[in-house]
Amino acid sequence: MAHSDLFAQRTKAMKASEIRELLKLLDQPDIISFAGGIPDPAHFPRDAFAKAMSLALDETSAGTSLQYAASEGYGPLRTWIADYMQTLGVTCDIDNIIITAGSQQALDYLGKLYLDKDDTALVEWPTYLGALGAFNAYEPRFDRLNAGENRTPDEIQNAARAAGGCVKFSYLSPDFANPTGKTLSRTERLAVLAQADALDCAVIEDGAYQALRYAGDDVPSLLALEFAQKGTLEACRTIYCGSFSKTLAPGLRVGWVVAAKPVIAQMVLLKQAADLQTATINQIAVNHVARSVFASHVETLRGVYGARLAAMLAALDKHMPDGVTWTKPQGGMFVWVTLPKSVDGRDLLEKALDARVAFVPGSAFYADGATTNTIRLNFSMSDEAKIDLGIARLAEVMRKAFLQ
Amino acid sequence: MAHSDLFAQRTKAMKASEIRELLKLLDQPDIISFAGGIPDPAHFPRDAFAKAMSLALDETSAGTSLQYAASEGYGPLRTWIADYMQTLGVTCDIDNIIITAGSQQALDYLGKLYLDKDDTALVEWPTYLGALGAFNAYEPRFDRLNAGENRTPDEIQNAARAAGGCVKFSYLSPDFANPTGKTLSRTERLAVLAQADALDCAVIEDGAYQALRYAGDDVPSLLALEFAQKGTLEACRTIYCGSFSKTLAPGLRVGWVVAAKPVIAQMVLLKQAADLQTATINQIAVNHVARSVFASHVETLRGVYGARLAAMLAALDKHMPDGVTWTKPQGGMFVWVTLPKSVDGRDLLEKALDARVAFVPGSAFYADGATTNTIRLNFSMSDEAKIDLGIARLAEVMRKAFLQ
Repeated sequence: MAHSDLFAQRTKAMKASEIRELLKLLDQPDIISFAGGIPDPAHFPRDAFAKAMSLALDETSAGTSLQYAASEGYGPLRTWIADYMQTLGVTCDIDNIIITAGSQQALDYLGKLYLDKDDTALVEWPTYLGALGAFNAYEPRFDRLNAGENRTPDEIQNAARAAGGCVKFSYLSPDFANPTGKTLSRTERLAVLAQADALDCAVIEDGAYQALRYAGDDVPSLLALEFAQKGTLEACRTIYCGSFSKTLAPGLRVGWVVAAKPVIAQMVLLKQAADLQTATINQIAVNHVARSVFASHVETLRGVYGARLAAMLAALDKHMPDGVTWTKPQGGMFVWVTLPKSVDGRDLLEKALDARVAFVPGSAFYADGATTNTIRLNFSMSDEAKIDLGIARLAEVMRKAFLQ
Repeated sequence: MAHSDLFAQRTKAMKASEIRELLKLLDQPDIISFAGGIPDPAHFPRDAFAKAMSLALDETSAGTSLQYAASEGYGPLRTWIADYMQTLGVTCDIDNIIITAGSQQALDYLGKLYLDKDDTALVEWPTYLGALGAFNAYEPRFDRLNAGENRTPDEIQNAARAAGGCVKFSYLSPDFANPTGKTLSRTERLAVLAQADALDCAVIEDGAYQALRYAGDDVPSLLALEFAQKGTLEACRTIYCGSFSKTLAPGLRVGWVVAAKPVIAQMVLLKQAADLQTATINQIAVNHVARSVFASHVETLRGVYGARLAAMLAALDKHMPDGVTWTKPQGGMFVWVTLPKSVDGRDLLEKALDARVAFVPGSAFYADGATTNTIRLNFSMSDEAKIDLGIARLAEVMRKAFLQ
């Protein structure tokens, strides 16, 4: 039998993540890789997790930790998250929170919750590759958020209707976005909210990197700004996706969503049908670790990653040839580099691998794949000396490539 | 804003699981509950999990356990599963296996993989409620598997085409099914496979309870039977879903799927887009526990649950009034009771709760909800004395109800 003859239409839009396929090739120790987007395992809070798992599996707790649990998530962890959201300026209670298997799963469930075939999702250009992947399963149309081309909300909505659906949500990562490292100003955030009000659509705020600021001042999250405008979470259209993957550890797959109760209630039903619940023991362990070391551990990470970001920006300044520009992030894990128009990041990668340095070509981060002269550099996995050496190698590759 | 105005059409078919909502009400200690479907936490392999987590978080392993990992799953665990499948008569390698967050997630991903809107899924009548919930997200039509009404494959396929799609798969749990406890004979299994060949559809085999046999002889799984017919897994249309939830512990959410490589490769893409991967540390811990205690622990469970099943069947014999019949399972966690036609299981539950005994009314397990005179009894969570007392209470409730 030809198995693929039976597959649903949606599978035609789903292809392997270039990044994850690429990462499989990068186990060679002499390559300096700026290709990943993962935390440095040398800085996981191992002791805290070992203690937490030991507590979760002691005689009084193991029966709960190893058993099924409620689809909405572990109450004490949701309480910790409610307190954490309060520090971000959002007042909520645990019925405004669902625990997901990382924030990637939140994106899948939000696609499932909102998108009928041919509905429109507004996304940044470029945007998080994993969001495009998650939403693609529901066969949407992507349109450009904040196109800078002065389209009115009516024009955007009319284009969505002409495609057979309507605008269901904007998706964006306002802090230290993957892949660009950019942060939206307060004014830009208020414009996103005003546009969503005009379109009457939801806003999905990806807060995965929000806690990882190394310089500059915090800007309130979209949800905090909307909460301040409207006075109650129930009136807010913003849906905030949080994650412990970048602050504590990704291997437990624990994230969360904060939104108005009708949204959370429907997500609970989706989750019940899709995987019943996030692993009980992981939620209990994360609750222990968050309560014991979250603030101090994030402070440690800010020091470690902040130094690496500074090293990368200094190395780019020092080594890069003319015609190359890059973002100046204040947090997160990525710097976004724009090459001369004639240079394709994918071609450059081939040459870079020969020179034992790696990165991710930028085209995959565009919903239309059309822009090819960009690359993403990750700085979280390399120490400062390696960063300088790797950027020097990359600059040398560029000089040769530009001459061709 | 009215949040639900923006929700996708699929959400209209998704409602709360009666079982999970009901379970929330059953925390009162004086209720004898046959309503759950969960393992007895007194018999989790706690020591093995505590040791496994300790190993997973030691200095050499923690960096891996807490980090991102491949979407297809942890290699050593997939190797263990390949060896386990060999004991069931299926030769496969690790590229035939993907790890999922429990077998519930496998059902969601298989719905996503196969079902376009209005495609047909053939299911048993009654069937696992969670399968109906998982598939419902993809807006299928359900038709009856093995209707016993002698429809030809052409008639079944023509009905599917008239509904706007085609038959994409049969879904069934051939061993000690939830909710009926029934096991298909070898002849019945061969008929399911022959029907799938004639329909040219996939077969999803839910093996969640297969290891929990307390009496009688093993019947080869559908996948093993098809493998024996066709000689290679690549020619098989059966997709086997396995789970550690019933044999080791559900709270880690680790299950697996075995199928031909093109099916697994596409599921890996779906998983990458939907939640990246099953929690790394959980897979590493389950690998340790499976390798150290799987066989001996399953043997222990067979003793414990087998005695409870025997106690329930004896109590039903002893207490039930005339007009009530029930299945005689040889494994699993459930006995399925048929009431007189005039008695609705939901009405009976109200009265039973007053008498401090609980169960799940059967109607939710039918795709059309039309059959109301059945109930599901779980025997895994109560000791033998409680089972006798609970069945006696239930019989008393029935006697009164039947007189009305």
